[in-house]
Amino acid sequence: MGKRVAVVLSGCGVYDGSEIYESVITLLRLDQAGAEVQCFAPDIEQLHVINHVTGEVAEGETRNVLVEAARLARGEIRELAEANADDFDAVILPGGFGAAKNLSNFAVPGAQLNVQKELRDFIGAMHNSGKPVGLMCIAPVMSGVLFDAGVKCTIGDNPEIVAAIEATGAEHRTCGVGDICIDEKNKLVTTPAYMLAGRISEAATGINKLVDAVLGMT
Amino acid sequence: MGKRVAVVLSGCGVYDGSEIYESVITLLRLDQAGAEVQCFAPDIEQLHVINHVTGEVAEGETRNVLVEAARLARGEIRELAEANADDFDAVILPGGFGAAKNLSNFAVPGAQLNVQKELRDFIGAMHNSGKPVGLMCIAPVMSGVLFDAGVKCTIGDNPEIVAAIEATGAEHRTCGVGDICIDEKNKLVTTPAYMLAGRISEAATGINKLVDAVLGMT
Repeated sequence: MGKRVAVVLSGCGVYDGSEIYESVITLLRLDQAGAEVQCFAPDIEQLHVINHVTGEVAEGETRNVLVEAARLARGEIRELAEANADDFDAVILPGGFGAAKNLSNFAVPGAQLNVQKELRDFIGAMHNSGKPVGLMCIAPVMSGVLFDAGVKCTIGDNPEIVAAIEATGAEHRTCGVGDICIDEKNKLVTTPAYMLAGRISEAATGINKLVDAVLGMT
Repeated sequence: MGKRVAVVLSGCGVYDGSEIYESVITLLRLDQAGAEVQCFAPDIEQLHVINHVTGEVAEGETRNVLVEAARLARGEIRELAEANADDFDAVILPGGFGAAKNLSNFAVPGAQLNVQKELRDFIGAMHNSGKPVGLMCIAPVMSGVLFDAGVKCTIGDNPEIVAAIEATGAEHRTCGVGDICIDEKNKLVTTPAYMLAGRISEAATGINKLVDAVLGMT
């Protein structure tokens, strides 16, 4: 039987939800490795909707994180509130601004961020059961909230975000786009993905290593 | 210099736009092969918006094909009306219902379909310049309109859709999910992708073959 992996999404689109390429590369690698995947997302409204042509906020428009994330899962998605750590061997979060706007509010107060309660509960339960967690792109900014002080993670090398991460109690490690950061004690694997990637194939190199490392820790 | 490939999108999400996995796998394979990719989509309203959790039409909601497709291109997208065949060596269309609802109206009248004028003009110009075209999933239903009678294509083996395709003057070839159909004369490559795929890795096998075959014909 394949490893059971939960993938937590935050919408559908880099500027207001899950980064699409990161999500699909993750799902493809997991499937190629024979994993059984279940996607989850919280049933909450997005912080806002961004027009991905102009980069501007679409004033007056609202979208639901679960409903939009369902696009990335071809409809096969469940509410994050239903996620039970007993049912999974590992959990992976792609990035995209949704991780900093919907799953947490990092985009607003930075280091004083809150993480969405259902996500905190699920990741906490996975971690307490000794199961590995993979976070990519901007998602590792949540590491200091989700894990104990001193947890090691990477978002690449952006100085402002590194400072915010260290202010949360996490330790940042500089990392290239094709590489990963492993905290063996916490079973946390992180990679910069589109924090650094210039091309989709660059992002894929690091993401594939992350998926392989997470599966290897189960 | 890499091959220059246009990828034409139809929104973002299997039920009312481009199939996301097919689109991303296409973009990844093209980038891994060193191609220079430009995404395009028409600046038109979607036929409708589908809630991807329930599968139902979201009544009263409207979305623009170009604006939604921009999510799949991380904002790097241009209007299909601007696509010039002189600038590209090949063109590929992922599937998803957007190909049958936005780029054409196949979802409504079936074999009596019309293809969106800008797409017809661009594909016509590419074809007249002897450049290869790749169509996947449901997109090959447009083959009989885009090419001369007798053009060979596949959407897998769905009898109802096969009958509609043959009514447009195209010839259908039964094909497995991991394989492709090549019409050498028309330089048209097709693959069933999510018309048949049960898993993302299955879809990737056929899509990667399609991309490689299209690049091989340039």
